[in-house]
This record gives sequence, structure tokens and C-alpha cells, in this order.
Amino acid sequence: MNFRVEKDLLGEKEVEASSYFGINTERALENFNLQNKTINLNLVKEIALIKKAAALVNKDLGELKIEKADAIIKASEEVIGGKFDNQFKLSAFQGGAGTSTNMNVNEVIANRAIEILGGEKGNYSLVHPLNDVNMSQSTNDVYPTALRIAAIRRIRKLSSCLSDLQEELQVKENDFSDILKLGRTQLMDALPMMVGQGFGAYAKAIARDRWRIYKVEERLREINIGGTAIGTGLNATNKFIYKITDVLQDLTGLGIARSDYPMDVTQNCDVFVEVSGLLKSLACNLLKISNDLRLLNSGPFGGIGEIILPKVQAGSTIMPGKVNPVIAEMVAQVSMRVISNDTAITMASSSGQLELNAFTPLIAECLLESLELLERTVTLFREKCINGIKVNEENCKKNLENSTALVTALVHYIGYDKASELAKKALKNHKTIREILYEEKILPKEKIDEIINPYQLTKPGIPGK
Amino acid sequence: MNFRVEKDLLGEKEVEASSYFGINTERALENFNLQNKTINLNLVKEIALIKKAAALVNKDLGELKIEKADAIIKASEEVIGGKFDNQFKLSAFQGGAGTSTNMNVNEVIANRAIEILGGEKGNYSLVHPLNDVNMSQSTNDVYPTALRIAAIRRIRKLSSCLSDLQEELQVKENDFSDILKLGRTQLMDALPMMVGQGFGAYAKAIARDRWRIYKVEERLREINIGGTAIGTGLNATNKFIYKITDVLQDLTGLGIARSDYPMDVTQNCDVFVEVSGLLKSLACNLLKISNDLRLLNSGPFGGIGEIILPKVQAGSTIMPGKVNPVIAEMVAQVSMRVISNDTAITMASSSGQLELNAFTPLIAECLLESLELLERTVTLFREKCINGIKVNEENCKKNLENSTALVTALVHYIGYDKASELAKKALKNHKTIREILYEEKILPKEKIDEIINPYQLTKPGIPGK
Amino acid sequence: MNFRVEKDLLGEKEVEASSYFGINTERALENFNLQNKTINLNLVKEIALIKKAAALVNKDLGELKIEKADAIIKASEEVIGGKFDNQFKLSAFQGGAGTSTNMNVNEVIANRAIEILGGEKGNYSLVHPLNDVNMSQSTNDVYPTALRIAAIRRIRKLSSCLSDLQEELQVKENDFSDILKLGRTQLMDALPMMVGQGFGAYAKAIARDRWRIYKVEERLREINIGGTAIGTGLNATNKFIYKITDVLQDLTGLGIARSDYPMDVTQNCDVFVEVSGLLKSLACNLLKISNDLRLLNSGPFGGIGEIILPKVQAGSTIMPGKVNPVIAEMVAQVSMRVISNDTAITMASSSGQLELNAFTPLIAECLLESLELLERTVTLFREKCINGIKVNEENCKKNLENSTALVTALVHYIGYDKASELAKKALKNHKTIREILYEEKILPKEKIDEIINPYQLTKPGIPGK
Amino acid sequence: MNFRVEKDLLGEKEVEASSYFGINTERALENFNLQNKTINLNLVKEIALIKKAAALVNKDLGELKIEKADAIIKASEEVIGGKFDNQFKLSAFQGGAGTSTNMNVNEVIANRAIEILGGEKGNYSLVHPLNDVNMSQSTNDVYPTALRIAAIRRIRKLSSCLSDLQEELQVKENDFSDILKLGRTQLMDALPMMVGQGFGAYAKAIARDRWRIYKVEERLREINIGGTAIGTGLNATNKFIYKITDVLQDLTGLGIARSDYPMDVTQNCDVFVEVSGLLKSLACNLLKISNDLRLLNSGPFGGIGEIILPKVQAGSTIMPGKVNPVIAEMVAQVSMRVISNDTAITMASSSGQLELNAFTPLIAECLLESLELLERTVTLFREKCINGIKVNEENCKKNLENSTALVTALVHYIGYDKASELAKKALKNHKTIREILYEEKILPKEKIDEIINPYQLTKPGIPGK
Repeated sequence: MNFRVEKDLLGEKEVEASSYFGINTERALENFNLQNKTINLNLVKEIALIKKAAALVNKDLGELKIEKADAIIKASEEVIGGKFDNQFKLSAFQGGAGTSTNMNVNEVIANRAIEILGGEKGNYSLVHPLNDVNMSQSTNDVYPTALRIAAIRRIRKLSSCLSDLQEELQVKENDFSDILKLGRTQLMDALPMMVGQGFGAYAKAIARDRWRIYKVEERLREINIGGTAIGTGLNATNKFIYKITDVLQDLTGLGIARSDYPMDVTQNCDVFVEVSGLLKSLACNLLKISNDLRLLNSGPFGGIGEIILPKVQAGSTIMPGKVNPVIAEMVAQVSMRVISNDTAITMASSSGQLELNAFTPLIAECLLESLELLERTVTLFREKCINGIKVNEENCKKNLENSTALVTALVHYIGYDKASELAKKALKNHKTIREILYEEKILPKEKIDEIINPYQLTKPGIPGK
Repeated sequence: MNFRVEKDLLGEKEVEASSYFGINTERALENFNLQNKTINLNLVKEIALIKKAAALVNKDLGELKIEKADAIIKASEEVIGGKFDNQFKLSAFQGGAGTSTNMNVNEVIANRAIEILGGEKGNYSLVHPLNDVNMSQSTNDVYPTALRIAAIRRIRKLSSCLSDLQEELQVKENDFSDILKLGRTQLMDALPMMVGQGFGAYAKAIARDRWRIYKVEERLREINIGGTAIGTGLNATNKFIYKITDVLQDLTGLGIARSDYPMDVTQNCDVFVEVSGLLKSLACNLLKISNDLRLLNSGPFGGIGEIILPKVQAGSTIMPGKVNPVIAEMVAQVSMRVISNDTAITMASSSGQLELNAFTPLIAECLLESLELLERTVTLFREKCINGIKVNEENCKKNLENSTALVTALVHYIGYDKASELAKKALKNHKTIREILYEEKILPKEKIDEIINPYQLTKPGIPGK
Repeated sequence: MNFRVEKDLLGEKEVEASSYFGINTERALENFNLQNKTINLNLVKEIALIKKAAALVNKDLGELKIEKADAIIKASEEVIGGKFDNQFKLSAFQGGAGTSTNMNVNEVIANRAIEILGGEKGNYSLVHPLNDVNMSQSTNDVYPTALRIAAIRRIRKLSSCLSDLQEELQVKENDFSDILKLGRTQLMDALPMMVGQGFGAYAKAIARDRWRIYKVEERLREINIGGTAIGTGLNATNKFIYKITDVLQDLTGLGIARSDYPMDVTQNCDVFVEVSGLLKSLACNLLKISNDLRLLNSGPFGGIGEIILPKVQAGSTIMPGKVNPVIAEMVAQVSMRVISNDTAITMASSSGQLELNAFTPLIAECLLESLELLERTVTLFREKCINGIKVNEENCKKNLENSTALVTALVHYIGYDKASELAKKALKNHKTIREILYEEKILPKEKIDEIINPYQLTKPGIPGK
Repeated sequence: MNFRVEKDLLGEKEVEASSYFGINTERALENFNLQNKTINLNLVKEIALIKKAAALVNKDLGELKIEKADAIIKASEEVIGGKFDNQFKLSAFQGGAGTSTNMNVNEVIANRAIEILGGEKGNYSLVHPLNDVNMSQSTNDVYPTALRIAAIRRIRKLSSCLSDLQEELQVKENDFSDILKLGRTQLMDALPMMVGQGFGAYAKAIARDRWRIYKVEERLREINIGGTAIGTGLNATNKFIYKITDVLQDLTGLGIARSDYPMDVTQNCDVFVEVSGLLKSLACNLLKISNDLRLLNSGPFGGIGEIILPKVQAGSTIMPGKVNPVIAEMVAQVSMRVISNDTAITMASSSGQLELNAFTPLIAECLLESLELLERTVTLFREKCINGIKVNEENCKKNLENSTALVTALVHYIGYDKASELAKKALKNHKTIREILYEEKILPKEKIDEIINPYQLTKPGIPGK
């Protein structure tokens, strides 16, 4: 292989001649050689976007020569476009608070800009990764700013997917709005309800999730670009700070805003805990809904069997004909993953020290993974599960009619203790509540029929009144 | 001992004659005999408040006779006033979704009301715990409603404590606004800053916590009272539902509102996950701040020693004169407890099934504990730690002056690579950056002094320009 | 009220004259005034036991006068006996690594010993809390040693309770060893099994838990008493160290042993993470088992209804006759609490710094709570749930017979794809597999009956061969 | 593109002609299209190993024709060898309890075997993925067995890496065994110790981790192969079960053993919680150690600065010359990831239902990730951090000498209260304890020097006696 030699604070090192990254990335590849997840490319691209914005501003301020600035801008755009995706192979769990990722981007852009200017990779006198590409910046303002922008974009997509899921659940609420079934509390037979009502309750929960996730964008909008190393802004002029925020607004189309206290944004990660906490709330709802669907779909003969989930693949390598609720199971597992990512984000965020949190790479990896996974999962859940759900009306009817829970309708007339006795008797004698009531003649038959009217029992009010 | 005999679905049982609770509570005391935490009394009192409200409404609607209703109302008020605190000894981890707690309240109020009416405890023909005290209600609407009201009250108190903490931090921000010190990233010497700036960053984080916690009240305001067992409202008339919400607004002074979909509120607990997630964000900030303070206070001789925390107690049983940062350590532990409570709330909330979540007692216990602990901790943190913090200016100065990080100010003039070399040389030769710069004569002495001006370095801009 | 004045490093302070605790406890009560959980009394008593052991040794070594030592010993025994339980009201979440708890014990014993010697409380010239009661000790060796002893005792009790639970499950395994039922994977109908086989699988899991918990005692046995403040042993002679270990062995009857590297035990808390992790494994099994039982018990009409859990209390304040699986629900909640305690223990243990972990009070509180809760829960689960379980044979039979899963038995004869087709046809035409097989005449009727023999299908082998 | 058409229970579907996987994998790729992590290839290869073992046994038992069996065996070996790594692209979070992964392996092996036999991919009459490759197996016994084998192999490697780390720490213990430094508790100056003693304490903790992880292999050795779908063994003969266990022992060289109760192993996942819990203990120790190292390395001027971590890369894009403890930071983040993986494993394991745990794919992904990450991290920690640590003796000396903590040595002579006074006076007057003692003349100068002898103070005993 062909190498070039680069130099840094610690000495010289060979870098593959074809590599766009340089000595800093090379060392980091060795230092963090975990052979596991690599850095999130969406984050890399937001960092490149900031490089572009900084070059635009520094060109405008006369700090960067036009030709050099233009080369940096073009190179940044190519990184954003995905042309150099294979140059970003650092570990997601790297030390250094993201410095290596920032340097990776600086180096790739610098070398590509050098090429654009007709130079050879490694000739940093043409374009310098730090003096030029990183001009007026520090990892400690670039990285959190990029993470916030990446998170906002994902939040918007997730929010939109949740909106679609909510609508699909409401379609089911309407479709099944007059199919009676048994409601259950603590898994025990309770009161009658409509199948659609259950889907309506799911839709409400998801609507709340959508709202929360949509609203939290506000707090992510505050960026600390210009705060440089510790938030004081050393080496970034006020002109630069104001201009780059404007440019980033233009380039992203997002309502991001300069923090009035960049030192806060540089060291405090509570916003990521907040976002992750909301994703965890969503995960809890998805777990609850997917578990409910699995329960209602259980059987087909030996379970509750009141709904039928779409069949999307054969279920067993040994039991022919078996079909499993695999989409719901995937949703549950992604939910647990999101909850476990929250553990990492919580620990990392609470471990910040003084003017910086060294563990932002872990936060970035886990937060973006949760957002990306949820976006896909919510979509697959809607398309491949919710939207094809059917109701087994026969089972709904059978389960409801046998239930002694209908006796609740009588409490107003005969009191709780007497009603308890009747329920006990029905259970013991294998009779329905209606049959027992007829036999006991506590009320006239017509009155009983008026009271034990399941349709009536799914609404507020005292039946028969 | 003297006993009375009570009866239920399962048969007869002796209850101590002096007990205000009855057979349901008695059984639950045996069933959940965990000998650990008992139910939160603040929650019990909100349940009693709902009993009072229901009696007021049912009296008004003619469903309860005036005399009986008045006795229930008076008994409820006595429970709220704390007169029967010793009658509520059930386990916080009880099964049954809170039914035993609700029955405990129903029974205590019924028996006290019976007494008020001149009867003997246990004579439920005078006042019946279910037919009368629990009229138009179910545990499944009473319990979540009470929990939401209890949570709102605590949230308001916590929010106010956070406001005080934020102010105290801002006092320190001002007091220390012109004391220079060394900023650190990843625990390594970084750039100069003012001691006050650090406190300002803490104040910003706490301000965000206060805002989040204050705003989340909105979502807790939706209550499901009137939804009864599964949210359909069976056995609660529309009149009752509308009126009790109004009465609860009056009695609590809170802007609570009837949910337009009580089945949602009955089965979904995501709001508690959301609240707990925000408390977790606060806990992360408190951990970060308290750890920072311990770090800055470390020493007094062998550590950083830049601040001095108030001495509140002797620190060691073996090392005379040792004083420890015990308040900060308490804050850290409470923060971890809050984070661990979030684990329980997350698991419990995601484990709801169909029309109910059976694990609301665990949610209630953990959420209210977190809220109460944080309220106290935030107050003690402010009073016994933050407000007496002093700065050791000598150490601040010493640590800053030795730091090679000041070389950052030169990057604009000599480039990153040259600056690196100087920093390396200073470190190797045990000299300050200023000394090296004078020696190397890269810039005129006056320029060097202009650039290496720590006051200047704590603000945005390129030093010396 | 009547006060005495005490003095410490920070100055003077009034202490209630009747209090056995002194100024250190008084300050700590104010500093950690969280109004929540107080320190675990079992831990307090193990600390008192160490005080007794130290007094015995120091008397023996001539470091403490006989009369004084005897008074300390007697006072310690009274604390162990519970006579002064009301003197230990400090917060479980106190800062100071347990110093306040140790001082509380030192002070109570000192003052009680002073009384025994005829003096007045507060006259520490007679018996000094530190010079005498705490002689040769530090909180940092006393506290971890006490925690380890307390944990071992609880572990033994829990282990024994688990043994009883395992046996009870095996009783059910035997009782139900020939009742056929449908097995389910992913909640979908799978293959036939015996009801007893399921209980056998639970028994195996619990047996593993018992073994793990029993074995982990080994690592808890290593104690650091004599290591004093940082594990180097300053101010504790080798004679003292050897003797006190022997005395503690005698007094506790446990095989505890002196660590050969006390500095390790003083600062590292991984053993508590290990123990808590094993309790978490147990909690996972308890969650799984209790959820299974709730599922199998669901109904009575609209669920699976294959087993019947004992009825231990009425279940609803609105639905007469409803009975809920409250014991299983309690077990689930305690399990979640144990899992959440593990979060706190993990965070606290990983937050140790240099020669000590400041967060041992949180570790102690959470670990002992988990152990105590599990001991009670496992017992209640056995007594009030497992041991009264009945099988609903009718439902078991009905659920099994309808299941198409029996087609699996045919795979050997007709291949997976053909078997799939038959299963699909059965499902579509609402027929049983047996009926379809008869109709299709793929095999002779006798062969079909030989193959589709559920008893056969619950054992290894190819049916009909 | 070129396609072949395959068929299953749900109908027909096109599969790319060049694909070795078939319709089941194709559907699963669509169903679980999460665009995130793919299944762990180490797990895939253990599944292929089981396929090989099953073919060997079934050939031996005459159930598979020799030629067909040999083709399956050869194809399995190619999968194990990595030849078809690109054919395994399913999501790690798939639903279906691993069925899709098992089918993916079955299909790739079947199609490759078909090729070997001269057929065309898709011609399953030659070799059938289920009837032949999956013969006598079910996902529910194959998958857990493969996971256990994969875990054992990783555990052994990790155990060996831990052994190396322990040795390296002991090298440092010896190297620094007579360099005095200040010990700290709660970050405050405490007693003298040797630098080496601290490394010895780390070595002890890691030794415990190694031991635990080594010993847990025992419980992973129990495999359920032959239990088929629910552990009853339907469609696997006893001959097959015994033989395949022997063959797997031979092929793996591991002491794996047939479970005597396969239904237990099929449904209970507590062993994975146990293993993950032990990895969490290790993670806690790694967090503690890496945080300590960062603390001791802090500075170089404005921190504790008692040790110097190896410089492995430049630390800042803005602050020239800054070097950060990036390896320790990576170790901390991996530790947090491992702790968060434990959350997922705990939730998934506790969510098993009846005869199976549907969430084993999540368990597998998280457990193997933790094991693989730890193996790499422990190695990098040793090679790139621990083994190059140097001590800054000057700082060690300076920090120790100033410390008032040396007064502890006097307690035996002058009592705790008098010693407290002296410490307070020293602190107030900026004098060392030695100076104060000389001034106060409480003891003769020679005695003072004898007592305040730091070397003496690092060992058990009363100084000066």
C-alpha cells in the first residue's frame, strides 16, 4: 500500500495515501478499535453542514480567502451528499467528547478541498483542517450544535409518523365502533365495551406522544455554536457568532437560535435526558399497545382470539401453520431498546464534569438510534400490523355473554352485597347472570332486559334509568 | 382484645372493634404483609377529598340523603385533616390496582360517618362503604384522579423550590462574577473563566428544570373521575360526572378538567412516565452540580480547592478535623434514588394490560416519593450548601496561572501547530506560557501581554484584536 | 423541654436531655431532614454488634478498662435487642458514607454506657463515643462490615424461603402431572403438555435462584474491619484485627473472614452489584411466573381460565363478585421494585471515588430493602397463591382439542409444507386437525389416532413410531 | 434483476435468483426493515454449527441420506467459515423469537447444499430447509443453544482479557509500591498510602470480576437442544437428543450438557440476566477505575496531577497542546453501554410468557454486544492506558505534606477532640500538622517525628508504638 506521512503533537504517523482522513482520525481508529458500531452518519453530515456554514461566514468576514472557502464549502457539500461515507469509520463509543469525529470531518473536508484546489492530500498548507476548516470553532460547540440539529430533524419525522399511526388507530376506532366485547381489568372479566373504544384509547395515548415530541423541539433549538471550548466564546468573534446562527437557520430551514448562555449548553445535557425520557414514554405506550394486541390476538383457539393480526410470515420451523404476532414483538423489542438507551443517556448526562460532558458520543449514539428506530418501528407497526387488523366477532360475543361482570348494572337496584351473592351463585352454577336474574325474580323480566343491555353498558349512566 | 365480625364475598372475619377500617382492609393487611413501606398519606387524603366531593354531588342530586351525606363529608374532612392517619397501614406495593387503598378509605369514612350518626362501627346499614361512600365511583377512576391531584400539588411545591434554588445560584453568579479561575474540559486544564460563570450555567439548567416541571402540570390536569371501572362511565350519570369535576376544582383550587376520553386515562400511564422522566432530568442536573461542587471543594490541600462548601458537621470518626461535603452527597444519592424510581415507574407503566394498569400502586409510591424527596433535597441543597459557598481566590489564581491552556489565545496569530509546539515546550520545561512566549519572542512583549489577558479570555472574540 | 449542651469541631449545640444520641446525630438529623425513609434497623444492630466485638477485644488487649468495656458491651447488647430503636431516626439517604449512622450508634452506646456506670448522659469523660466506643475503628471499616453481615443473614433467610417456594412448585408439578393442556409460544397455540410440566419449569428456575443466592455468600464473607479509614489499618493493631474477626465469627456464627486486602473492600462495591444482580435475576423469574399465573387464571369466562388462583379478597369496589390475582400483582410490583433498586445500587457502586465510596448509605438501603421485600414476597407468594392453585380441567381440555397445533405430529410423515396446508384448511373450515385428517385420508384412521395422541405428544420422540 | 419464485403458507414471492436465502428470509427482511443493527454473525455461526451437528446425527441415525447429509454438513461449514456473511442481513430486533434467523440459516444452508448436489437454488426437493436442514429441531431449542455456546466462547475470551488486565494492574502495584501519596475519602484529604496500593485495590476488583465471569459458564452449559418447540421434545427422538449433545461437545470442545428439563431452558432466561448482571459488576469496576485514573491524571497544572496517563492522541481542535484521557473515557462509555444493555436484557427476560420468551433476539443482541465490547475495551484499556501510566512523584509529595489528615496518627495519644482542635488550628493558620505539633509541644519533637512518619502510616498499627 501507498502511504503519506502526517505529523501532530505526538509525532509522525503513516496514513494510507488514498485516505481523505488524516493522522488524527488514524490515531483514533487505533485507540477506539472496538470493532462495534461506528459513528452515526446523520450526525457526521450535520457537522459537515456546520463546516460549510462556518466557511461561508469566514469568507464573508474576510477571514478565509474566497478560493479556499469555496473549496471547503464544496467539499462539505460532498460529505453531506454521502460521497465520503466510507471515510467515517470511528467507533460510536470513542473517548474525547467527539473531538475525533470533528477531526475526522475536518480532515476529510480539508483533503477534499486540497484536491479541489489541485493539491495533493496531506498538503495542509493549502487547506488546514484546524486553522481553516475548524476556524472559529471547537468540538465543544460544533458537536452539541450538530447533535441538536440532527435530533430536531429526526423528531420532526418521528412526529409525523406518530401522526399517521394515530390516524390509523382512529380508523380502527371507527371501523369497530359498534362491535361489543368484554372489557378486562387486571386480566379479569370486567364490563362491556366496543372494540373501537379500545383503539380510541390507544389513539389518545399516541396523540399525547406526538404532542410531547413535537413540543420538545423548542428546547433543542438553542445552540451553542460560537461558544468554542468552554462556552466563553474565545477565538470566535461576536460577528461570527451572530452570522453563523443566521446561516445555519437558512441552510437547515429550522428555527434554531443562539443560546444566550453558551456555557450552559456546552456542559449541560439535560435536554437529551428530557428528549429520551419522552421517547421512553412513547416506548411504554408502544409496549402496552403491542402487548394488548398480542393478548387479544392470542389463540387462535386456546387464547382470547378477539382480534386477528395480519399474517406477515410463517411462524415456526417445526409447527406447520403457526403464525406469530412478529410485528408486535418487534415493536416491543425496539421499545425495550429505547428504554435501555435511556439508561445510557441518563448515566452519561449525569456524568458531565465542570465545563464539559466527556460522554456526548454515547449520548449522541443512543439518542439518534432511539429516534431512528422509533421512526421505522412506528411506520412498520402501522403498515404491517395495525392497518390490517380484523375482529373475530364470534369470539367477542361469546366472551362477553358468559361474563358475570354484567351484574354491575344491578348495583344501583339491589346494592353491592346482594349483587355479589348473585355473581357468586352464577359462577358456581355455571349460569349467566341473566339466567340467574330470571330465576331469582328480583326484578321483572322486562326490567332485567332493560338493565342488562350491553349497548347501554358501554356508556355513562345507570342502566334502566 | 375486642372484635366485631364483618362479612364479604369470601366469608366472615374478625376485625378489632376499635378499628375504623373493616374486613376489606383487614384482609389486605394480611395479604400484603410485606413489613415495608406503607401507602403514601398524601394520596390517601386526596382519595378522601374525592369521597367528600362525591358525597356533595350525590347529596345535591338526591342520591344520598342529606344527613348521611353530611356525615360522610365530615368524616372525609377528618381523614383529610389527619385524624385517622394511623388507620392507613397497607403496603405501598399492594396488588389490586389500589382497590385496597380505596376500600381502606371507604371503610374508615363509613365507620366514622356511622359514629357521627350515632351508630356503632360495623353497622353498614347506616352508611355503607360501597353503596354510599363509593357511590358512582370505582377504584379505577378514583385512584388515578387522586394520584394526579397529589402529583400536581407536589409539582407546584417542587417548582417553587427550584425557583428558589435558581435564584440562589444566580446570587452566587453575581457574587463571584469577577473572580478568575481555570475552566476544565474532560478534567484537563482548559480556558479561563469567572467563578460566577459556572454558577450561571447551573442556574440555567435549574431554570430549565423548573420550566419543564411547571409545564407538565397541563397533562396531569386531565382526570377520569366518572369513568368508573373501565372508563365507559357505567353507573355514573353524566350529571354526576360534570358536577364532581366542578366540585373538585373548587375544593382543590386546581385547574383540573374532565378527560374527554376517560378510558384512555384509566388504562394509560404514560403521563407518569413523562413526569418521572422530567424529574430524572432534574436529578441528572443535580448530580452534575453536586459532583462539580464536590470536585471544586476537594482538598482542602490535596485537591482542587477552589471553592469551600459550608461545614455542616464533623466528617469522620477517626480523622479529626475532617469535614465532608455531606449535603452534596445527600443530593447525589437522592438523585440516584429518583433515577431508580423512574425504572420502576417505566416498567410498571409499560405493563398495563387492556383496560387497566394493575401496577398503579407502585407508580404512585415511586412518583410521590421522587417528588417529595426532591422538594426536600432541593431546599436543603440551597439552604445548607449553595448559600454558604465561599471561593478560595488564592487557589483559583494559582491553578489558572500555571495552565498552558492560555496558548489558545495565540492560535489566531501563529496557527494551531506552532501553538501546540509552544504548549509542549512549556510543559516540558516547567514554564508558564507567558514565560515561553517572552523567551521565544514570536510577538512583541506588549502584544503578548495584550493577548494573554485572562479577563479578555473569558469573553467572545480574538484576544488582542 | 430540657436540653444538654454538647460540643464538636463546629461549636456547641443543644441536644434534648433525654436523648441517647448526641451532637453528631443532632446535626445529621437537621442536615438530612428529608422526611422520608430512616436507616435500616437491621444494619444499625449489626453496627452495634461490631461495637460489642471491638469492646471485647480492646478489653482483652488492655486498651479499655474492664468496667468501661463491660458497660459498652451491655449497652451494645441493648441496642441489638431493640431497646433503643427510637433513637435511630436518621435519613437512609444521608451523606457522609455512613459516618452519621456510625456516630449515632457510638453516641447511643456511649450515653447508655455512661448511665450504666452511674453517670449522666453527655458526660463523655466517662465513656467517649469516639475514643472508647469507636476505638480502633473507622466508619469506613465498620459500615461495610456491618452491611456484609446484615446481607449474609438476609441471604440465608431468603435462600430458605426460596427453597420452600421451590418445594411448593414441585408439589404442584406432581399434583398436576397428568392433566393435559395446550402449551403456548408467543401466546399462540403450540403443542400439548401436562399442567404439571409448567410448574416443574418454574421450580427449576427458582432452584437456580436459590443456588445463586446461596453461593454468593462466599464473596460477602470478606470483611475489612481493621482497615480503618482507607484500608491501610492506621490506628488498628494487627492483634486487634485478628482478634475482632474471630470474635465476630463467634458472635454471628457466620464464616466471615478478614480480607487480605482491606483497601479493596473499603473502596470497591462490586459485590453489592453482584448480589443485587442476582436478586434481579430472581425478580425476573418471579415476574415471569406471576405473569404466567395471571394469564392462565384470566377470565373466569373471557380469558384462558386454565388454572384458578386462590381467592384472597374481594376485587372491586364497583363490580360485585370480581376477584383479582392480587398476590401475583404484589409479587410483580415487588419484583419491579427490586429491579429499580438495582439501578440505584449500580449507579452508586460505580460512583465510588479513590479510597472510598461515599454512597454506601444508598447501597445499604436499597440492597437490604430488596432482600427483606423478597423474603416476605416469596413467602406470601407460596402461602397465599401457589399452594392453593387449582386446575380447571374442562378449560384445559377444550383449549387443547381445538388447537391446530397437533398437526406438528404429522410432519415426520407428510413433511412441513403439506402439514401447513392441512393446518390452514382446518383453520379456514373451523374443523379440528383430527377431523381434517380423517376427511383427507392421508393415513389410515388407526394410524392417525396413534399419532394424534396428546399424551404421547408431551414426550420426546416421533409419535406413532 | 433475475428472480426465482418461492412459496410458503402465505403464498408466493419473488426472491433474487442469486440469493442463498429464500422466501422466509425475504419476508423477514421486509417485515423487520428497521435499517439498524443486523443479527450478530457469531450467533449465526453457532446456529450453523448446530445444523452441522444435527446433520451428522441424522445421517448416523439413517434419517438423512448420506449424500444429502454431507452436502448440508459442507454448506454449514462454509457458513461457519464466513463465506456467506453477506446473506445474513436481518434486523437484530426481529420479532418471532429468532425463527427468522433460524430460517435464514436453514435456507442458506439448504440452497448451498442444493448447489453442492448440482441442483439449482430454490429446488427444495433436493434439500429442504425445514424437513432436512432443520430436521428434529425447532428454533426454540436451536436458538437458545446457539446463544449459550456463543456466550461461553465470549466469556472465556473476556475472562482471559481480564486476567491480563489484572496482571498489568499488579505490575503497577509493584512498580509504585514505595511512592507515598495522599489517600482521599469523599474527595477530601485522608491518610497516606502508597501509589501502588491503589493499583492493588483495582487488581483485586478485577480479579473478582474474572472469577465471577469464569464461574458463570457452569450455568450456561446446560442446553435444551432436542426440546424442540416447547421443551417436551416432540419430533426429536431420545437417540437424537443424546447424540447431538455429544457431537456438539466434540465440535465445540466445550463442556456443554443436555438439560434434564429442557422446558425450563426453553422458557426461562434468568441465566442471561445473571451473566449480564456480572458484566454490569465489571462495568461498575471499570467505571470506578477509569474515573479514578481521570481524577488522578487531572491537570496537568490545575488538577490533582499525581499520575500521568499515556498520551495517545491530540485532545482538542481549539486548545493546542491539550491531551485528554480518551481511553479512560471510552472505557467509561462502554461501561455505561453495558449497564444499559442490562436494562434491555432484564426487561426482555422478565417478559417471557408461558412456554417461550419471544424476546430472545433482543437478549442475544445485547448480551453478545456487551461481551464483545468488554473484551475489546478491557484489552485497549490495558494496552493503551494502564500499561503506560507514570507517577508524578513531586505532586504526590506536595499533596501529602500539606495535608492535615496526618493528625489522625495522634489520636491514640491525645484523643479525638484535642486532635480536632489541632487540625482546625493548622487549617486556619496555613501550617502543616507537624509545624503545629512542634509549636504546641504536646509531645517531644522526637516522638512527633516518630509518630508522623508517613511510611509507618500506610500500615496497620498505632504509629510510635
